[in-house]
Amino acid sequence: MNAEDTAGAIRRIRMIAEMQPPFARLMGMKIIDATADRVVAEFLVREELTNRNGGLHGGAVMAIADNLGGTATFLNMPEGAGTTTVESKTNFFAAVPLGDTVRAECTPLHRGRTTMVWQTRIIRGDGKLAAMVTQTQLITRRESS
Amino acid sequence: MNAEDTAGAIRRIRMIAEMQPPFARLMGMKIIDATADRVVAEFLVREELTNRNGGLHGGAVMAIADNLGGTATFLNMPEGAGTTTVESKTNFFAAVPLGDTVRAECTPLHRGRTTMVWQTRIIRGDGKLAAMVTQTQLITRRESS
Amino acid sequence: MNAEDTAGAIRRIRMIAEMQPPFARLMGMKIIDATADRVVAEFLVREELTNRNGGLHGGAVMAIADNLGGTATFLNMPEGAGTTTVESKTNFFAAVPLGDTVRAECTPLHRGRTTMVWQTRIIRGDGKLAAMVTQTQLITRRESS
Amino acid sequence: MNAEDTAGAIRRIRMIAEMQPPFARLMGMKIIDATADRVVAEFLVREELTNRNGGLHGGAVMAIADNLGGTATFLNMPEGAGTTTVESKTNFFAAVPLGDTVRAECTPLHRGRTTMVWQTRIIRGDGKLAAMVTQTQLITRRESS
Repeated sequence: MNAEDTAGAIRRIRMIAEMQPPFARLMGMKIIDATADRVVAEFLVREELTNRNGGLHGGAVMAIADNLGGTATFLNMPEGAGTTTVESKTNFFAAVPLGDTVRAECTPLHRGRTTMVWQTRIIRGDGKLAAMVTQTQLITRRESS
Repeated sequence: MNAEDTAGAIRRIRMIAEMQPPFARLMGMKIIDATADRVVAEFLVREELTNRNGGLHGGAVMAIADNLGGTATFLNMPEGAGTTTVESKTNFFAAVPLGDTVRAECTPLHRGRTTMVWQTRIIRGDGKLAAMVTQTQLITRRESS
Repeated sequence: MNAEDTAGAIRRIRMIAEMQPPFARLMGMKIIDATADRVVAEFLVREELTNRNGGLHGGAVMAIADNLGGTATFLNMPEGAGTTTVESKTNFFAAVPLGDTVRAECTPLHRGRTTMVWQTRIIRGDGKLAAMVTQTQLITRRESS
Repeated sequence: MNAEDTAGAIRRIRMIAEMQPPFARLMGMKIIDATADRVVAEFLVREELTNRNGGLHGGAVMAIADNLGGTATFLNMPEGAGTTTVESKTNFFAAVPLGDTVRAECTPLHRGRTTMVWQTRIIRGDGKLAAMVTQTQLITRRESS
């Protein structure tokens, strides 16, 4: 990547980071890479995100993945369109310990005009796949007035 | 219910409320009823739980339902066993506005020795069904030493 | 129900039965009741539908439920619209023996203009819930020429 | 692969093909490759597998994927264990026309002692991804007598 491309990428990530909703900030997720084909975030497993076993709460996993899928759809939509999550499915494979830094990678399975389907891999600091989230986003077209 | 039953129910709810994990407190969910057959929680859609459309974030819906399913499984497990979420599936039907008080009702679809499957209805203040979460919990048996 | 209503119901079921696709006939499913709010089918667990354990194959369960959801959506759509399954999720609870007659009951979770979500209960002859299928149908509007 | 390896692979595929349940034969699926890490099948979209739009029925997609996941789990299990599908989730992306030959590729997301999770890609003759199936298999241990 040359300097100009890098500057463009940085601007895009900054813009996306700024448009993250309040809930994404509550989760503490930070977008670290974003293109139309892949959105990557990181977050720290702080104590507030833990379950009764002392590891990362599955709810936090789903919350962060949902937010990434929305962001990825946003980056692929025609201007003026909106997006809403129709459904989301998560499989959990391994516990994630308190204090770990988790990476979430969102890539497309399908990008149609009406629906988009995204998969988000939740990856522990040691590289192990902790969970996989698949979700469907519906593109809503706003009528011009 | 006579006075003794009522006292027992109150004690049980208090105990469950106290064992809620840090993440449940971050979400602001409050258990308001809990038996082996049904667990009910309420929470306020405060600004921190909102998405970019200004309504309740789908991630918060899934997070709260996951926590209820874990609680419900806990109330049905043999002593000394543990539980972990294997998978969770959510369908979203309607937006939930900021400031609304949401009710989440968790009831069993299946309670086996190895797995339990729970459905949680996410109900808006006006009574409309906003989402439905179905999840599978795996019962993990701890060996006695 | 009076005689006229009964005649109407019989006609509707007959019409739906006739429009069942080839795959529904391969499965051997028979619509036994159909209104806008509920579609019910029955089928026999014949040997061709069995898995390696000698019971009803999970694939047949999903196939029949998918067909019911399509039928139910069809009964609720505006004229000239079409429907396609966006996603389908099944939880399995109990084995179904060879020779059993299974009942499949499909009811709505959500009926919107763009999507409909249906749940189908797969019930054994002895009344036990064997599986639950939840699916999303997308309504496709055909443009008038 | 040398001649001996090839002969071994052929024997394994033949064995797996022979142990396919009656339902797999009804679907017309044929295992064309099988290792512990990947199972591949092919099938023809014959008229009996079609839906009311004249394309491949979604139920057939799920049925064939379920059978592949069971086969893949079988190839990874300790001797004497059994397997049962706990849940299955499918996303549909594109219609598959009558007469097409479809390829189904099943690879692991997770292979644990208690559960295995498999993804099956349903690929049209023209190479387009038509559907993705994710399913959880529970390993059941049979007690020695």
